[in-house]
Amino acid sequence: MALVKYIDEAQASPRVLAVYQDIKQTRQVESINNFWRALANDPDTLERTWRSLKAIMAPDGALDPLVKELIYVAVSITNGCDYCTVSHLAAARKAGLTAQMRNELISVVGMANETNRLSRGYLVDIDPALLQAASSIGEE
Amino acid sequence: MALVKYIDEAQASPRVLAVYQDIKQTRQVESINNFWRALANDPDTLERTWRSLKAIMAPDGALDPLVKELIYVAVSITNGCDYCTVSHLAAARKAGLTAQMRNELISVVGMANETNRLSRGYLVDIDPALLQAASSIGEE
Amino acid sequence: MALVKYIDEAQASPRVLAVYQDIKQTRQVESINNFWRALANDPDTLERTWRSLKAIMAPDGALDPLVKELIYVAVSITNGCDYCTVSHLAAARKAGLTAQMRNELISVVGMANETNRLSRGYLVDIDPALLQAASSIGEE
Amino acid sequence: MALVKYIDEAQASPRVLAVYQDIKQTRQVESINNFWRALANDPDTLERTWRSLKAIMAPDGALDPLVKELIYVAVSITNGCDYCTVSHLAAARKAGLTAQMRNELISVVGMANETNRLSRGYLVDIDPALLQAASSIGEE
Amino acid sequence: MALVKYIDEAQASPRVLAVYQDIKQTRQVESINNFWRALANDPDTLERTWRSLKAIMAPDGALDPLVKELIYVAVSITNGCDYCTVSHLAAARKAGLTAQMRNELISVVGMANETNRLSRGYLVDIDPALLQAASSIGEE
Amino acid sequence: MALVKYIDEAQASPRVLAVYQDIKQTRQVESINNFWRALANDPDTLERTWRSLKAIMAPDGALDPLVKELIYVAVSITNGCDYCTVSHLAAARKAGLTAQMRNELISVVGMANETNRLSRGYLVDIDPALLQAASSIGEE
Repeated sequence: MALVKYIDEAQASPRVLAVYQDIKQTRQVESINNFWRALANDPDTLERTWRSLKAIMAPDGALDPLVKELIYVAVSITNGCDYCTVSHLAAARKAGLTAQMRNELISVVGMANETNRLSRGYLVDIDPALLQAASSIGEE
Repeated sequence: MALVKYIDEAQASPRVLAVYQDIKQTRQVESINNFWRALANDPDTLERTWRSLKAIMAPDGALDPLVKELIYVAVSITNGCDYCTVSHLAAARKAGLTAQMRNELISVVGMANETNRLSRGYLVDIDPALLQAASSIGEE
Repeated sequence: MALVKYIDEAQASPRVLAVYQDIKQTRQVESINNFWRALANDPDTLERTWRSLKAIMAPDGALDPLVKELIYVAVSITNGCDYCTVSHLAAARKAGLTAQMRNELISVVGMANETNRLSRGYLVDIDPALLQAASSIGEE
Repeated sequence: MALVKYIDEAQASPRVLAVYQDIKQTRQVESINNFWRALANDPDTLERTWRSLKAIMAPDGALDPLVKELIYVAVSITNGCDYCTVSHLAAARKAGLTAQMRNELISVVGMANETNRLSRGYLVDIDPALLQAASSIGEE
Repeated sequence: MALVKYIDEAQASPRVLAVYQDIKQTRQVESINNFWRALANDPDTLERTWRSLKAIMAPDGALDPLVKELIYVAVSITNGCDYCTVSHLAAARKAGLTAQMRNELISVVGMANETNRLSRGYLVDIDPALLQAASSIGEE
Repeated sequence: MALVKYIDEAQASPRVLAVYQDIKQTRQVESINNFWRALANDPDTLERTWRSLKAIMAPDGALDPLVKELIYVAVSITNGCDYCTVSHLAAARKAGLTAQMRNELISVVGMANETNRLSRGYLVDIDPALLQAASSIGEE
């Protein structure tokens, strides 16, 4: 029940089509998902979002592509975005996600959501030593 | 400005002390963080939370301990729990987090929060192929 | 799959009917939406919510009615309330929302959700000059 | 208590400096806010975020710049990001926000957060007529 | 670091003062909290919010006043609103909250936040029998 | 459209079956809900979650079982987890929830979500007296 029409490749403007082709080539896929076909109603957002996503999820970073997909799923579950949970689980599967890894991912997400609230419920103060450690990442 | 007094080892009941000692041994640390010292006001919750966290974050799972910490941080940033962000960044640093990895983590968290809302804003339908892929994890 | 029966005008008590009639007159509509028909199971909440909404969304404020609907949609997308997103997009359309405006709205919502987390991820401190500016709104 | 050092113009790499100069020129400001000075620790994210924000918040869109700032503040309040609330209120003030408009903005944000939950609490179904209206934006 | 000046009784307009007096009388308190003193900058919102809160939290309902305060705290912890958590814990204490009840409250809030995400992570379908039961509340 | 197969009793491993039997005995029910049947794909999480939930929701605490269910529903509505809202409303009904109590619950949840944002929108400072009161719970 999307609020916009999905734009197929046959109907796409040259600008939209260029993004579609880059998606297909970059991801080595044959078809374009509903997310991009919906965004194509706003070519500016389509281009910008794809360009950002492509850069952020690029395989040449410090984090493994599978790890990035896990992070993506963790946020999506927390926010309750089923579309995003499903699509990034599918991407994670392609990158090697096993059932055991999926189970551990979901259990960590559940635990983090719980302790986030235990911490807020008691208004726990940040330990100076933890702040110091977190602030000195990369300064070894 | 925590809402409870932090319970130090010197004041701890035997039951609380047993948890503290397990934390120190498991994590190879010398002191107990404010989070646990606050939870110690409720020994049931202290025991249960530590037991769950210890099991979920155990190093013998399918996911690397560093990856689990990254997932924890991703959820904590999304929920806006500064205590949790700081403490799990500190744990991630111990597990090998570099500044570049931290930067990539935060950028993925930001991107996921953005596309979660783009997806919701247009009420994008889940692609049957993605649902099928996400539903068949572990069935190769 | 609402958890309560929708209360139609034919079944409505005089108290509920009075609210329904005020909704129809104020909004110049012929029928009552599911939201109000569900709230009618709790006449206190129906009355209070309609009275508050009517006052807040009144056309004689400093903000244009269309702008208020955009703000409403922005919150609803962020919270993942599809009913609210759809109903306030429908109201915004009546107030003049074009497809381009809708696209820009969603892109701003996405961007804000992203930078909210970039800001939290690095625990950025509020600039004194920004705080000073935000604190002196209306004091020119 | 930011987790990274703020990067001043004097210390900035040419790449970071180029972004800083574009920010100053685009916004007609003399100094760079903490948000950008924190992001400068990750030049990729700095560049990408600024480029996206500049495009999305550009004054030549269908929505007025002040309206975009109001939407930004609405999301930031909903997510509880004080930095973002303050910085975008400051930007909105520059764009003409009065105290009365600020008050109305906050009241709409509050109301939307309330009715989002009333709607979820009763699992209200989307009215077909509303879905139809929301789906036909721009199709007049 | 509130974004508005707190309005004291001495400075209050007759309209604001009437609300202040009703708050003091209804709650049997001597002074007005910052929340109301901030809202007083927008008398419409002050009046409406107080009137709604007074009605919803009234002691003559089906739920005990203490139970309502617990619900209020549960929501506030989940949303990360420290002000609200603290002020409604203070109100709950007045209504009889013990330390053990507070501990149980926080543990339920933590657990609910966890299972909310376990449920979303696996996209669990609502059981027809549960939906039927939840839909027939009050129909015995 | 759950992402895992539901595990029925007939297919369950002895370890899963033991949890199922404890659920049935503890709750005096005949069948196992989808939530547990989904979690059974990850026996560690099934066992841990049930053990925690059983302890937290136990009837011998300081809070009444019905009150705990109300708190659970309040969190679930706030997070937008329909499964959890429905299943805990069903549990609350079993524990005595009336329609009037349900209506009051939802109205308090709505109100809290609203004032959470009014408070954040104005960045209201915590009153020292409220902090003092909230910090001295149980110290009479």
